[in-house]
Amino acid sequence: MSETPRRLVLLTEGYRDAHTAKTAINVIRYKPEDVVAVFDRAGAGATCQEWFGLGGSIPVVGSLADAPGANALLIGIAPPGGKIPAPWRPIVLEAIRRKLNVVSGLHDFLNDDAEFVQAAREHGVRLVDVRQNNEHDVAQRRGIREGCLRIHTVANDCSLGKMVVSVEVARGLQRRGVDAKFVATGQTGILIEGDGCPIDRVISDFVNGAAEKLVLANQHHEVIVIEGQGSLFHPRYSCVTLGLLHGSMPDGLIVCYEMGRTKIEDMGVPLASLEEVRDFYEAAARIMHPCRVIGVAINGARYSDAEVAAEREAVRRRMGLPACDVLRHGPDELVDAVLDLKRQLRK
Amino acid sequence: MSETPRRLVLLTEGYRDAHTAKTAINVIRYKPEDVVAVFDRAGAGATCQEWFGLGGSIPVVGSLADAPGANALLIGIAPPGGKIPAPWRPIVLEAIRRKLNVVSGLHDFLNDDAEFVQAAREHGVRLVDVRQNNEHDVAQRRGIREGCLRIHTVANDCSLGKMVVSVEVARGLQRRGVDAKFVATGQTGILIEGDGCPIDRVISDFVNGAAEKLVLANQHHEVIVIEGQGSLFHPRYSCVTLGLLHGSMPDGLIVCYEMGRTKIEDMGVPLASLEEVRDFYEAAARIMHPCRVIGVAINGARYSDAEVAAEREAVRRRMGLPACDVLRHGPDELVDAVLDLKRQLRK
Repeated sequence: MSETPRRLVLLTEGYRDAHTAKTAINVIRYKPEDVVAVFDRAGAGATCQEWFGLGGSIPVVGSLADAPGANALLIGIAPPGGKIPAPWRPIVLEAIRRKLNVVSGLHDFLNDDAEFVQAAREHGVRLVDVRQNNEHDVAQRRGIREGCLRIHTVANDCSLGKMVVSVEVARGLQRRGVDAKFVATGQTGILIEGDGCPIDRVISDFVNGAAEKLVLANQHHEVIVIEGQGSLFHPRYSCVTLGLLHGSMPDGLIVCYEMGRTKIEDMGVPLASLEEVRDFYEAAARIMHPCRVIGVAINGARYSDAEVAAEREAVRRRMGLPACDVLRHGPDELVDAVLDLKRQLRK
Repeated sequence: MSETPRRLVLLTEGYRDAHTAKTAINVIRYKPEDVVAVFDRAGAGATCQEWFGLGGSIPVVGSLADAPGANALLIGIAPPGGKIPAPWRPIVLEAIRRKLNVVSGLHDFLNDDAEFVQAAREHGVRLVDVRQNNEHDVAQRRGIREGCLRIHTVANDCSLGKMVVSVEVARGLQRRGVDAKFVATGQTGILIEGDGCPIDRVISDFVNGAAEKLVLANQHHEVIVIEGQGSLFHPRYSCVTLGLLHGSMPDGLIVCYEMGRTKIEDMGVPLASLEEVRDFYEAAARIMHPCRVIGVAINGARYSDAEVAAEREAVRRRMGLPACDVLRHGPDELVDAVLDLKRQLRK
């Protein structure tokens, strides 16, 4: 993923909301300099700003011919089921014929698709599966540098902004002059940061080990902010979440949630409260390492400024913790909480 | 694995203790009718009873020529690192030349080994990797039959007898006339039972889903006893353990531990107490489904009858729960606890 310069066309054809198009939207948010265009026929002629509400003048196009200079097509969605939608196949094949590499974060690998592999071979382009990994090591608990402060984002559900909070807090620390690093653990984070580990694609026996290796690889920084995955409360993904929590041994946790969401998406299971999330995550984390929740990140995307401000105040009082919506208020209150913990632990 | 009749040679060359040779020892314990011989040159001429302390007159041999009638060689150890020891390669190749299929539960697949694959092709035999799987489904929480009682074995460490307890309790229930099923989740259990899922080899995103599928596939039985894996307290394997716990939604847990063990093996981490295990497992399980610990299984292999009897009495008092060493006392006290729960829940 470290190939530079990347000049990406983001394929989002038919998907526009913040949930399904989250890979594209977050690449636009944090790596706009890599994005040549977005491909969606329905939006052709619009700007990204008009289409997604961010991304300025980056064009939305309806033909790859309208994205000259691109060198790669990025599958820009995270579809339920993880498969490439059938209507996208001709677009991917056309990209290959136009000598664009194709980059995907889906569970179904491009490199396992005979038609794509054959086409890529004919046209001399690469198929890059971001989730491909060969993690095969168990955790060892050797060589951990305790001088590096480890922060981890957690939540009561998936797909509500843990990656955004992690990037914002890491960049906020950097603006304060701290040597901080965003440690990516999912496909979108890896696309933004250029490194990391697709932890939900690792064989279960090696998840804790892969998370520990991320710590070892990045602990020369003063602070690492490790992107959380899934939730300990999620019927589908709690396995991933605990392996990452235990392997990365955080000192501090930031609890993320989305205002107005009441159930685990797609499953109808009632969401855990912030108190339940704090208590169970702290109990789980402390099995491996002293740890506490240091702040709350509110995703208030569906609400007005006034409503989010009221929620923020209520959460601060109720939890006795700093709280903010990083995209609305900036991450400073959480950055302060990280720096407070750093001082307290003398790290 | 359901091929019958299996006539196995168990390869344990150089490994004899209950920990590293546990696959061989448990296949001998629970499927002696499938075992033709054990291969270990150092023990050639002995009986299994003399060599391992169980298995009666099954011979230990030092040459495959001394195991006529065998149709498969089983890799009978679980080595740290999961690789086939170098001195075993010529034995495996000789087995292939003698037209024996080769069966392995290791993480390193026989079918990824070019030399073995080539030899198997030449001699027309099959290489069976028990951990191979293609699990690719997330949990759905649909179609669960609550009339089936789900029991799960858990522990404060790995490799201390959860599989043995699961088999013994399931067989004890069967002897009482209950339609009970042992649900295997590891390679040895799968070799014994003939079905199951190698849960620690499943991609982490699909572990909860694979565990749920085991429930769906077996819930026509009155009671299922789902073999536990690893431990929520294990720095290496907690990911596997939580996915299995959450995906299988147990009604009742049996806590297993080994007398005299004080630290997580190989890692020097102090073991959690029985109370800590009970409290954290119950909290974790109840996120998904009502659940409680119904009994304690003691592995007293290193102690005398009198010492284990004293421990049993102390654990009963301390925890207020039934307790026994299933290999020493039989599983009846735990079987009673399962039947009590079945009545209480009207299942």
